[in-house]
Amino acid sequence: MREINIGLLGCGTVGTGVAKLLLDQRDLIASRLGAVLNLKRVADLDLTRDRGIRFPKGVLVPDARPVVDEPGIDIIVEMIGGQGIAKELILRAIANGRHVVTANKALIAGHGNELFRAAAEKHVDLYFEASVGGCMPIIKALRESMVANRISSMTGILNGTCNYILSKITDEGSSFADALAVAQKQGYAEADPTLDVEGYDTAHKIAILSALAFGMPINLKDVYIEGISHVTPLDIEFAGQFGYRIKLLAISKHQGSAVEARVHPTMIPFSNMLSNVNGTLNAITVTGDATGDIMLYGRGAGMMPTASAVVGDLVDLARNMLKGAAGRLPGLGFQEENIRPIAIMPIDHVSTHYYFRFSALDRPGVLSTISGILGGHGISIQSVQQKGRKTDGAVPVVMLSHRAREADVKQALGKISALDVVAAKPVLIRIEDENLED
Amino acid sequence: MREINIGLLGCGTVGTGVAKLLLDQRDLIASRLGAVLNLKRVADLDLTRDRGIRFPKGVLVPDARPVVDEPGIDIIVEMIGGQGIAKELILRAIANGRHVVTANKALIAGHGNELFRAAAEKHVDLYFEASVGGCMPIIKALRESMVANRISSMTGILNGTCNYILSKITDEGSSFADALAVAQKQGYAEADPTLDVEGYDTAHKIAILSALAFGMPINLKDVYIEGISHVTPLDIEFAGQFGYRIKLLAISKHQGSAVEARVHPTMIPFSNMLSNVNGTLNAITVTGDATGDIMLYGRGAGMMPTASAVVGDLVDLARNMLKGAAGRLPGLGFQEENIRPIAIMPIDHVSTHYYFRFSALDRPGVLSTISGILGGHGISIQSVQQKGRKTDGAVPVVMLSHRAREADVKQALGKISALDVVAAKPVLIRIEDENLED
Repeated sequence: MREINIGLLGCGTVGTGVAKLLLDQRDLIASRLGAVLNLKRVADLDLTRDRGIRFPKGVLVPDARPVVDEPGIDIIVEMIGGQGIAKELILRAIANGRHVVTANKALIAGHGNELFRAAAEKHVDLYFEASVGGCMPIIKALRESMVANRISSMTGILNGTCNYILSKITDEGSSFADALAVAQKQGYAEADPTLDVEGYDTAHKIAILSALAFGMPINLKDVYIEGISHVTPLDIEFAGQFGYRIKLLAISKHQGSAVEARVHPTMIPFSNMLSNVNGTLNAITVTGDATGDIMLYGRGAGMMPTASAVVGDLVDLARNMLKGAAGRLPGLGFQEENIRPIAIMPIDHVSTHYYFRFSALDRPGVLSTISGILGGHGISIQSVQQKGRKTDGAVPVVMLSHRAREADVKQALGKISALDVVAAKPVLIRIEDENLED
Repeated sequence: MREINIGLLGCGTVGTGVAKLLLDQRDLIASRLGAVLNLKRVADLDLTRDRGIRFPKGVLVPDARPVVDEPGIDIIVEMIGGQGIAKELILRAIANGRHVVTANKALIAGHGNELFRAAAEKHVDLYFEASVGGCMPIIKALRESMVANRISSMTGILNGTCNYILSKITDEGSSFADALAVAQKQGYAEADPTLDVEGYDTAHKIAILSALAFGMPINLKDVYIEGISHVTPLDIEFAGQFGYRIKLLAISKHQGSAVEARVHPTMIPFSNMLSNVNGTLNAITVTGDATGDIMLYGRGAGMMPTASAVVGDLVDLARNMLKGAAGRLPGLGFQEENIRPIAIMPIDHVSTHYYFRFSALDRPGVLSTISGILGGHGISIQSVQQKGRKTDGAVPVVMLSHRAREADVKQALGKISALDVVAAKPVLIRIEDENLED
């Protein structure tokens, strides 16, 4: 049976999962593919760590570069991460005519346009299903299944760390700091959690998906990013009273001639399937003009789910190789000449619904002052709750707005913030609820 | 730009959707594919019906056979349905070296093995994504994404008509007959609803998916099939009291050396995402050893969602054609020589949890008689509720069992049925709840 030789660069968590699958499921994969995916080389600086794998002799090597240059290798799997050496090695593999699979969302989000161009020029495939949503086949769905659709929007929970922390705060009323500490203890959050909890990882993913959905180059720098570190149990409790859950959502919408691409804590109604996606799980809803809403749900991270997506890509590439069909699918799902920049709307131009929480001193006229300022900026309120419960000597006043423009909201909140009767910086959380009146 | 010529056979609801997409989204599709999908011929007996489409002159023709034989046609889309003329035309198209796309689940479930063999022999592709789950890309997920996984089980809501009716009974307490009448009025059920409500359509789909998941030939005849016409508002109400919803599930599990493949009304806990899939929507959960659970959710039927899946297949086939890569993917996802029969377990051998409802006369000792008979057949009960509410002079006694074997259950229920103190045939509904004790 024909063998296709794989060179794996980086044998950390996901790399180990990929190696395990290639070794343990070798026959199963061959029974589907009609060829063997042969793990020829694994490059990792650490040659001694016990990974629970017995590599055949000579497979594990310390240096990645020779693997990229080795003549017998057909496909390079980049599992090193980061944007330095990983990028250099991928470009070198492409230059050598190797196909490449990666799960490196930071790299694809930051340098994907350049990498896909290089791959197209050399007629090799660069696949990246595992970079978004782990084992949920969202990239395949966009590049292959929904091709007859004009996609209008995507809404996703794409970071398991954040979803775990928010679920924890929701279920147990813990503070962000406590929930983060538990997540770190459980291995669901890194020692430095910034990339996850500040929303950057989610932004990488929605930048990639927006390109695939809308036929635009990957544009990470204009995605609006706001993390979850300021989300409090109090706001989660109020959200619940309005029938909402707070999730860190990646939202991408094609609006007129621009795209909204934003990552922030968001209130969604209990009736939205995404509100039931808890713990480390991920899910994404995509709306196409022919399909309506479809949703994918599954493990967005972790050793074996991510490795499953990587090996899925390997089989796809191998199928292309066996038929001499490299380049069958363009990297970003559109023919390169049809990829055209679409502006991402500055957050100030976005219109949406808002939840506000003001800490107001309990004096007559406060409510009318606040709503007067909001009204003066064209923001109308559809629901107000003044809660008896005092925090820091002030009473929380909670409001849901009709659709309003972010720039107006910011100006109004600035003015309200400056009022003597307002004790703390107002809290703003955006709402996605299509049943709310505009 | 290269044109790929499509011959569409049958222009009913879904066929019209396919034609609309090919005409309306022609440029969008071309911008992704790099070639034009050209709707060359549409064959339908009815040449005059207003389909809201202006076909170019000469496109709409009355006879399908010449389209299948027409030299310039590259891909045939079979939208006729049924297993007679549709099968004949597909075989003829294959013999003529044409690639084929179909949404015909009855045909694939009944004759797929033969059709895929014919296609493989002629080195043409036969794609069928739209046959299961409408626009949810479940066939792609199984054939392409989850290839590194040993799949252990699949659980799906695969028939929108049944799900609509059950949702209606659940939400409004209506009878099956009333809910069916509403479904018919709304266009969600056929005038003759047998194929849907008796579970046959769902069985077609799970027979197809089982083959793809487990590497076995399609085996429809051994799938256990039970429809929803006997589901009552009373049982749905009791289910709710136990924290369950009743859904018509397709269940397929690889158990030891056999496969369980069954379609029946099933109680699932509120915590199962599938319990929140309501109305005409479909969803399926697939469990792989690497991925864990993934779920797909979307519109499983309807003109445009189904047409979207058909055109997705067309683009896949066109991508193969453009690269000379027909046969890139084997029909059932496994190489033909690796497809081996796996026995489907007779329902009597299946072990699961059960909900029983007995109509018992309100006399001392009845409960102990019933549970004695169950116990005598090795069926132990983990929860009993005797409800005050009388129906037909009897009191409903409701029980949830520990895991029991269906053959034992049947024997025990036969005996209980014959008791003088039991007023009606006992009701049995199977439960899928992994949190229940065995």
